[in-house]
Amino acid sequence: MTTAAIPGYTYGTETVAKSPISMEDFELIKKTVLFTEEDEKYLHLAGEVLQDRVEDVLDVWYSFVGSHPHLIRYFSTPDGKLIEEYLMAVRKRFGQWILDTCQRPYDRDWLNYQQEIGLRHTQEKKGQTDHVQSVPHIGLRYMIAFIYPITATIKPFLAKKGNSSEEVEKMYQAWFKSIVLQVTLWSYPYAKQGYF
Amino acid sequence: MTTAAIPGYTYGTETVAKSPISMEDFELIKKTVLFTEEDEKYLHLAGEVLQDRVEDVLDVWYSFVGSHPHLIRYFSTPDGKLIEEYLMAVRKRFGQWILDTCQRPYDRDWLNYQQEIGLRHTQEKKGQTDHVQSVPHIGLRYMIAFIYPITATIKPFLAKKGNSSEEVEKMYQAWFKSIVLQVTLWSYPYAKQGYF
Repeated sequence: MTTAAIPGYTYGTETVAKSPISMEDFELIKKTVLFTEEDEKYLHLAGEVLQDRVEDVLDVWYSFVGSHPHLIRYFSTPDGKLIEEYLMAVRKRFGQWILDTCQRPYDRDWLNYQQEIGLRHTQEKKGQTDHVQSVPHIGLRYMIAFIYPITATIKPFLAKKGNSSEEVEKMYQAWFKSIVLQVTLWSYPYAKQGYF
Repeated sequence: MTTAAIPGYTYGTETVAKSPISMEDFELIKKTVLFTEEDEKYLHLAGEVLQDRVEDVLDVWYSFVGSHPHLIRYFSTPDGKLIEEYLMAVRKRFGQWILDTCQRPYDRDWLNYQQEIGLRHTQEKKGQTDHVQSVPHIGLRYMIAFIYPITATIKPFLAKKGNSSEEVEKMYQAWFKSIVLQVTLWSYPYAKQGYF
């Protein structure tokens, strides 16, 4: 699937929010999660491993969300009716996000898109991209808490292309760092003025 | 060291902040990080492994902070002068926090203390416990970003008491879940009204 075929996927376009974070501040956050060029290399390798298994990864994540009423409500109307087309529209972008995490350079466009992703989970933009009336936002609690399942569940997939256990571990650590880095960036629009 | 000998360590006392999070909402966050009774069991085991190595763990973390100017500033005056006694006072509580993470039941007292810990990093309470004039707060960015180093660096220590690699992995996963859980709770006072 080309990215042009993904509705609402606006990476690199003029409509994307501008991140208020400077490249200097971004570098300091990267240093704090110990993110280095070696991690970029192993994320690229992870992208090669994961690119044929994106749907399988999404099956695991959607099954996790689908089995928890307190999570599936974020794809539902305020009175609790699941919005199937919303679930599917987000799924396409979620798949592309896996590839972007591994393959995109973490430059200004990438940083801006993290701000956009953050905003799309808040009261400012939730549901707007897909023109749906869902619950008003996903609280910061679940944005941070998701670091665990989104990290832990990826490891078995990284081992599926015959890489050495050392390579799998390095891909996994690079993924873990990237997830923490991204959730950090997504939290910006949740924070009180001056608290980020 | 008994906890009574740790200045500013107020766990379970009347002076601790009250968490605004209900036990029901707390259970949902625990479910989201896949935290179960098995994790409690392995955290207890981790406590047995780590209790004699608390100072070694702190040495690693303090070395990490000390080697990064953008982190050591949080133990410094606003004009950049390190406050040694502040560094040492926090260190004692940090050591106790390792043990609390492993040994305390995650009940209402524990939940309240997470709110207290969160507040002590924000503009509301930073520096008050130790009566120091440091920078006004630690931004949400570093609270979340620290999930990575505080998790990744613990693993070698968990392997130091001869437990099987399976046990070490389970202790490590339980620790990882607990860190994500705690940072989630610490983020409450950073979030805009209604955004947590």
